[in-house]
Amino acid sequence: MKLYITPGACSLADHIALTEAGIPVDLIKVDLPTHRTEHGEDFTTVNPKGYVPALVLDDGEVLTENVAIIDWVAGQAPKLTPPGALGRTRNIEMLAFLTTEVHRPFMRFMFSPADAEKEAARAAIDARLTHLAGRIEGDYLFGDTFSGADALFYVMVRWARDGGFELDDRLLAFADRVEARPTVRATLTAEGIA
Amino acid sequence: MKLYITPGACSLADHIALTEAGIPVDLIKVDLPTHRTEHGEDFTTVNPKGYVPALVLDDGEVLTENVAIIDWVAGQAPKLTPPGALGRTRNIEMLAFLTTEVHRPFMRFMFSPADAEKEAARAAIDARLTHLAGRIEGDYLFGDTFSGADALFYVMVRWARDGGFELDDRLLAFADRVEARPTVRATLTAEGIA
Repeated sequence: MKLYITPGACSLADHIALTEAGIPVDLIKVDLPTHRTEHGEDFTTVNPKGYVPALVLDDGEVLTENVAIIDWVAGQAPKLTPPGALGRTRNIEMLAFLTTEVHRPFMRFMFSPADAEKEAARAAIDARLTHLAGRIEGDYLFGDTFSGADALFYVMVRWARDGGFELDDRLLAFADRVEARPTVRATLTAEGIA
Repeated sequence: MKLYITPGACSLADHIALTEAGIPVDLIKVDLPTHRTEHGEDFTTVNPKGYVPALVLDDGEVLTENVAIIDWVAGQAPKLTPPGALGRTRNIEMLAFLTTEVHRPFMRFMFSPADAEKEAARAAIDARLTHLAGRIEGDYLFGDTFSGADALFYVMVRWARDGGFELDDRLLAFADRVEARPTVRATLTAEGIA
């Protein structure tokens, strides 16, 4: 199995989920501005949409999109799915919220050329992260067990923390707990961002 | 079961999926600027995030996010899931792409106060819809059977068509096919937008 990533990008969430699931992957780094992999391959031949993550299964099927990949990984390792009849749906719901309401505003915050847009994006991220701080139940989003959605939530909190956002203490404590997980430390080391 | 919608908004996709699945719902309209339902209820007591759709199951559980709701509906009506071992994942992947790469840019296109942002959003939508035109296989995204993802794809194409975008003929023909479905016509009538 091959996982195409850019170190520290949103693909870190998929990488963490795979490590938590105990699924080994060959890691291939992609330079997003040029769409070249570290081996000189044209990444758009793998994912025509041009962005990471892409997970290539052993049978050659290519999965893209954080929600779909992390949900698929959680299907391989049920411990990553919250409990209850609606557990899988709750994990997907949280992943969908994170990708549309936090990740997308981060793209505007990081890449918009307009200061007013950046500030609007920052305000949106602040509001959504504050909402999520109140959703932490025990150690993680769905209680004391680390879920697939927690992997993406962590990456969003990490971006905000390292980008100088003033963060609610509950979010900082959450990131500390995630970073104390040996699986997460190993993943960060593998991406060269420990 | 209750579905909170705003006529013609993205919640139309969930409504179509439910109609295709043969699941009857009580429809409750929400005025998004005031967060009031047509019955005067404060919608944030139903969905604290403040936006449609929200689906209230018969046991009182509230589901939000288009990806999660449409995936849940497809779980009730397997015909809405593409065939194959990865069918559910492919449906989720397409829904995730639509929500992050088409729906979110539409929000910027419709609501950004800056002309440069609007134009950047329009270009992003154009590029993504053209990519999707090439993904139509037969009548729909995954062959000749209408999937959950097709419901959201249709709403995005409808917005573009009615918003004056110049659309690839394959997209216009797709929208015509969807609108010829009796279930879809009934759904549009129920929302008062036929």
